[in-house]
Amino acid sequence: MSKGITSRADDYAKWYTDIVQKADLADYSAVRGCMVIKPYGYAIWERMQAELDRMFKETGHVNAYFPLFIPQSFLAKEASHIEGFALECAVVTHSGLEKDPETGGLRPKGKLDEPLVVRPTSETIIWNTYKDWIKSWRDLPLLINQWANVVRWEMRTRLFLRTTEFLWQEGHTAHATAEEAEAEAHQMLEVYRTFAEDFMAVPVITGRKSDSEKFAGAETTYCIEAMMQDKKALQAGTSHYLGQNFAKAFECQFQNKNNELEYVYATSWGVSTRLIGALIMAHSDDKGLVLPPKLAPYPVVIIPIYRKDDEKETVLAAARTLKGSLEADRSLRDVRVKLDDREQYTPGYKFADWELRGAPIRVELGPRDVAAGQVVIVRRDTGVKQTVPVDQADELIVSLLGEIQSALFQKAHAFREQNMVPVDTYDEFKRV
Amino acid sequence: MSKGITSRADDYAKWYTDIVQKADLADYSAVRGCMVIKPYGYAIWERMQAELDRMFKETGHVNAYFPLFIPQSFLAKEASHIEGFALECAVVTHSGLEKDPETGGLRPKGKLDEPLVVRPTSETIIWNTYKDWIKSWRDLPLLINQWANVVRWEMRTRLFLRTTEFLWQEGHTAHATAEEAEAEAHQMLEVYRTFAEDFMAVPVITGRKSDSEKFAGAETTYCIEAMMQDKKALQAGTSHYLGQNFAKAFECQFQNKNNELEYVYATSWGVSTRLIGALIMAHSDDKGLVLPPKLAPYPVVIIPIYRKDDEKETVLAAARTLKGSLEADRSLRDVRVKLDDREQYTPGYKFADWELRGAPIRVELGPRDVAAGQVVIVRRDTGVKQTVPVDQADELIVSLLGEIQSALFQKAHAFREQNMVPVDTYDEFKRV
Repeated sequence: MSKGITSRADDYAKWYTDIVQKADLADYSAVRGCMVIKPYGYAIWERMQAELDRMFKETGHVNAYFPLFIPQSFLAKEASHIEGFALECAVVTHSGLEKDPETGGLRPKGKLDEPLVVRPTSETIIWNTYKDWIKSWRDLPLLINQWANVVRWEMRTRLFLRTTEFLWQEGHTAHATAEEAEAEAHQMLEVYRTFAEDFMAVPVITGRKSDSEKFAGAETTYCIEAMMQDKKALQAGTSHYLGQNFAKAFECQFQNKNNELEYVYATSWGVSTRLIGALIMAHSDDKGLVLPPKLAPYPVVIIPIYRKDDEKETVLAAARTLKGSLEADRSLRDVRVKLDDREQYTPGYKFADWELRGAPIRVELGPRDVAAGQVVIVRRDTGVKQTVPVDQADELIVSLLGEIQSALFQKAHAFREQNMVPVDTYDEFKRV
Repeated sequence: MSKGITSRADDYAKWYTDIVQKADLADYSAVRGCMVIKPYGYAIWERMQAELDRMFKETGHVNAYFPLFIPQSFLAKEASHIEGFALECAVVTHSGLEKDPETGGLRPKGKLDEPLVVRPTSETIIWNTYKDWIKSWRDLPLLINQWANVVRWEMRTRLFLRTTEFLWQEGHTAHATAEEAEAEAHQMLEVYRTFAEDFMAVPVITGRKSDSEKFAGAETTYCIEAMMQDKKALQAGTSHYLGQNFAKAFECQFQNKNNELEYVYATSWGVSTRLIGALIMAHSDDKGLVLPPKLAPYPVVIIPIYRKDDEKETVLAAARTLKGSLEADRSLRDVRVKLDDREQYTPGYKFADWELRGAPIRVELGPRDVAAGQVVIVRRDTGVKQTVPVDQADELIVSLLGEIQSALFQKAHAFREQNMVPVDTYDEFKRV
């Protein structure tokens, strides 16, 4: 099996794209700037969604869904918001297609009274809704998140990192005081930091964006940034304190405890499928993807090895028993075990395939292993191979998964520490 | 609390809309035909997604994500497909907005070379992708599902039942033989039937659409239909055998086991947020929503009753203990228990509120109940009230949840049997 992955040293950008495509994570589509997220890449997103969604709910948030389309006039209601997004909006102008008698092809038909924009972010449509939901301090806080697709027209795209359409979550909260909204923005930044470090195994630095870089419509934008293997920082999540900007734009006032009308305070915060790009770039190597156990679609892959039919039955039976025992282990409750019993591929092909796909632990099981009551356990991150009695496999795998998760974090952390240069002045910064 | 729900007898359509809006499930938005799915309605969708997604995965499917946009020319490649969808497509023609010097408002800018359609369904973009993924019989079957939003421009809309944008899942599978594809279409219809009956508690009839009603591009469309309380049938899910129609339109051939090139056989199948409409209409009454325990966001709601501060502590402590004990009960593992400890509402308001929201079981707990070591348990579907010793509450709740789930199914089934009229001839059908 020829993997044909460009090495990082040769061409870092090409290395990244090779991994995304060859590990079957995503691919370009027929629509400029839009990607197809393939099943293996989507499985990583599902793992991310599950953990983030749990963390959002534990901090009191609920999910809801707002329209994909935003009337163009809504975007203009917050002055800096439209400035930021005007040139990257997909605009819907018609509600149908008809045959074009001149070309024989199709042409748009049924012009809309007002063009609709495909949401680049949902502050405007949401605040236009919140204004009907919020009357009194009793209606606050409103703590809502949305899982959705958004579109920002991009000229130069890169799989996961920058695409015209991407998947994300966007939290939109409403509060009675500036202090409470500020605290929410910080809390969600902390949720993102925890997710990046504890699940992605990516150390991040939290910071505040400069006025020229902040979100179009925000008072303050906080972000988490991670250092990639090319020593560049990648923005991985943002949390905005919006002040009363959108409440004023959409006339959203509430009666406070003193019976006075006041504009509502807001936050918004989001992470997207870009996280998958960060995950790939943080840990992978020239052999392919390296995934942290907590986000790997299959943290453990069992590969049966056999040549003859009589071996096949014995080995597959032992492999199924091992899979069952791992899945029954309570401390491995959330660990998804894959038995790769594909008939059309050799064990050698499968080793290379799961190395490319970054499965944290590979378990090899052949007829001699079955006879000797043992299994071979191989770590993806270090390549270290151990042969252990089968009745100790569970315990070793549990402890290895924890070790790999923290080893990846430690390695990324050490890399960052080695390559981070403290600067005190702007001149020094430019020199560095 | 005035609920102001129109009775079914007075105006069935108004009754439905009243429940959707007053039970906080969804509301109209500022965008014509698009709805906002509010947190309580979205929580029902999340329950549905979780169960359906599990069933799809158990039948060997994986999730992926394809672009929102489809080049207009793709839609035209399958003749009956474009005929079916041409007049309900949202068409993107521009990639930005600019100031209109004449009106001072905005206008589209950056005309696209080819207009893009917001997916009304994804057969075309997916088959344009599958053609690159499928080369040999070894690549088959391909069993992929997508959770997504779709847009079909509708002139007359009703919350959940028919909206311009809706959320759904669409399965798209590719097979080496017609028989296998036919079997897949039937299998997924059966998954839908099981979901409708076992989780929604809605008895359905499976059937086959006439040629004029079948999906635009299908060979055969199978569907599940349920009888609503107005005795009308509601289509709740469809599964299509597509034959080789899309494979031919997109030139998707594979090398079969005899080394011959052959067009791939296909299915597609989907259910949408319309299921929430079916769920509402199947079980609800003039007092509000009635939800089956398996899909209720909160199957059990505990309402503490107290007047004085010293009562409050005692009652809330007992309520928390009960909640903890219910949550720790292994047979109630998946049951979400809500303790409604909102300070600003009276117990009477909360009783009415959760009746309106259809919580299957309400548990009342006041100071005298605490003193007597008892709780009051009330069924939403029958209104029957029981007082039981607190140490028997777990057991009773477990058994009641099962009883309510099957009682709702039995009731809907009996209603259908009473109101279904067998007809043998078309003349008879017209008369009935």
